[in-house]
Amino acid sequence: MDPVKVIEIKKSVFEDNDADARRLRKELKQKGVYLLNLMSSPGSGKTTTLIGILNLLKEKLRIAVMEADIDSDVDAVKIKEATGIPSIQLHTGGMCHLDAEMTRQGLSGVETEGLDLVVLENVGNLVCPAEFDTGAVKNAMILSIPEGHDKPLKYPLMFSVCDVVVINKIDVLPYFDFDMEKCKEYVHMRNPKAQVIPICAKTGEGVEAFAQWILEEVNNWKHN
Amino acid sequence: MDPVKVIEIKKSVFEDNDADARRLRKELKQKGVYLLNLMSSPGSGKTTTLIGILNLLKEKLRIAVMEADIDSDVDAVKIKEATGIPSIQLHTGGMCHLDAEMTRQGLSGVETEGLDLVVLENVGNLVCPAEFDTGAVKNAMILSIPEGHDKPLKYPLMFSVCDVVVINKIDVLPYFDFDMEKCKEYVHMRNPKAQVIPICAKTGEGVEAFAQWILEEVNNWKHN
Repeated sequence: MDPVKVIEIKKSVFEDNDADARRLRKELKQKGVYLLNLMSSPGSGKTTTLIGILNLLKEKLRIAVMEADIDSDVDAVKIKEATGIPSIQLHTGGMCHLDAEMTRQGLSGVETEGLDLVVLENVGNLVCPAEFDTGAVKNAMILSIPEGHDKPLKYPLMFSVCDVVVINKIDVLPYFDFDMEKCKEYVHMRNPKAQVIPICAKTGEGVEAFAQWILEEVNNWKHN
Repeated sequence: MDPVKVIEIKKSVFEDNDADARRLRKELKQKGVYLLNLMSSPGSGKTTTLIGILNLLKEKLRIAVMEADIDSDVDAVKIKEATGIPSIQLHTGGMCHLDAEMTRQGLSGVETEGLDLVVLENVGNLVCPAEFDTGAVKNAMILSIPEGHDKPLKYPLMFSVCDVVVINKIDVLPYFDFDMEKCKEYVHMRNPKAQVIPICAKTGEGVEAFAQWILEEVNNWKHN
C-alpha cells in the first residue's frame, strides 16, 4: 500500500525532444500551469529545499509536485507529509534524466486543473538532465556547499541552462573550503544572467528569497 | 599550453559493451595492469581521496591515473601536482559515463608498460556510470556524509556494482543528520559483500584502510 501515487515512466519515442518540449510548454501555457524543473546532484538538499518553499508558497499558489527517481518513493512521501501538497513519484526505470515526453507522462498523473505551479524534482544528476528540455518554463538548480565551488567549471551545461542557482547548506560554510565569490564568478561565466541565491534549507535561511523568485516568475508568466 | 595530456574520447561504436569490457579486462590481465574504476557524485571528494591514496601507494605500486570529466582539466593537474603520478585528462564530450571502448581510448594515452595499477576517476554521477562496465577489475565508490545515508535506496545499481563503498567527510558528521549504521545497512541491502570504509580525505583519517584494500586487491589479482 503506497501512500503516494507512483508512475513508471517510459523512455520517449520522440526523435525530436526539443520540438516536443516546446509543444508541452505551449499546452501548459494554455492551461495556465507553470512548470519548474529543479535539478541538482544527489544529496544536495532538493527535497528539503522544496519543503521549505512549498510551505511558504502554498497559501499563495496552487501547487503539485512530481518527484523523479530511479527507484524508491521516499521523496514523494516526505513532501506530502511535510507540506500536504499533492505529490507523485515518477520512476524512471533506470533512466538518468527526464525528457519532455516522460514529463508529460508524469503530468498525466497530476490533477493540473486549476493549478498554478508544478515543480518537477528531476533525477539527482548534474550531467544528463541538463541535456533534455523537459518542457519547463524555467530551470533551477541547487548546488550545496560540500560539493565545492568549482562545479560550474566541471558541469558547464547544467549551469548554462539554469536561470537560478540556489547554493544550499551555507550553515556548514565554516567546515568546507568553499569560496562563495569564486562560485558566483564561475556560475556567471556559464550564464551571466543566472541569479545566485545562498540558502540553508535546514534552518530556513534564505529560503524566502528563492520562494519569492518563484512567486514572481509564476505571476509574471501568467500575465505575459 | 596544457600541463597535462587531454584526450577527447568518443562514444563507443560497440553494440555489446559487456563483451568489449571482458575483452579489455583480459588484455589488461595479460599486461598485468589492474584497472580500478572510481565513481561518485560530483563533489564527494574523489580527487582528494585519490591524492591521499596515491601518496600512500606510490612507493609500493607503479600507478597512473585517468581523470574523466565532461570538461576542464583541473583534476588531472591537481593529481599530478600533488602526487607526481602520471595523470591524464579524458574529456567525454558531454557523455555522462565511460564505457569499455572509451576507457580503452583513454588507456591508449597512458604508458601502461610496467604499470601495476591504473585508477579511472569516472564522471561524477551516481546513475549512468553504474550501467556501463568499463573493463575495470573492481568498482569503488565514494559517498560523502553531506549526501545523506539514504543514497543506496535511491541509486540501487551504483551500490550493487561496487565492491567497496568509501564514506568520506566523516569530519563533518556532527553537522549532518547522517546515520552511519543505517547507511551500512542500506549498502549491504544492495550488495551484502561490499566493504564500507569511513574516511576523511581532508585530514587523512581512514585513508590508509582504503589504500590497504587496493594494495591487497592488486597483489591478490596479480598472483591469481
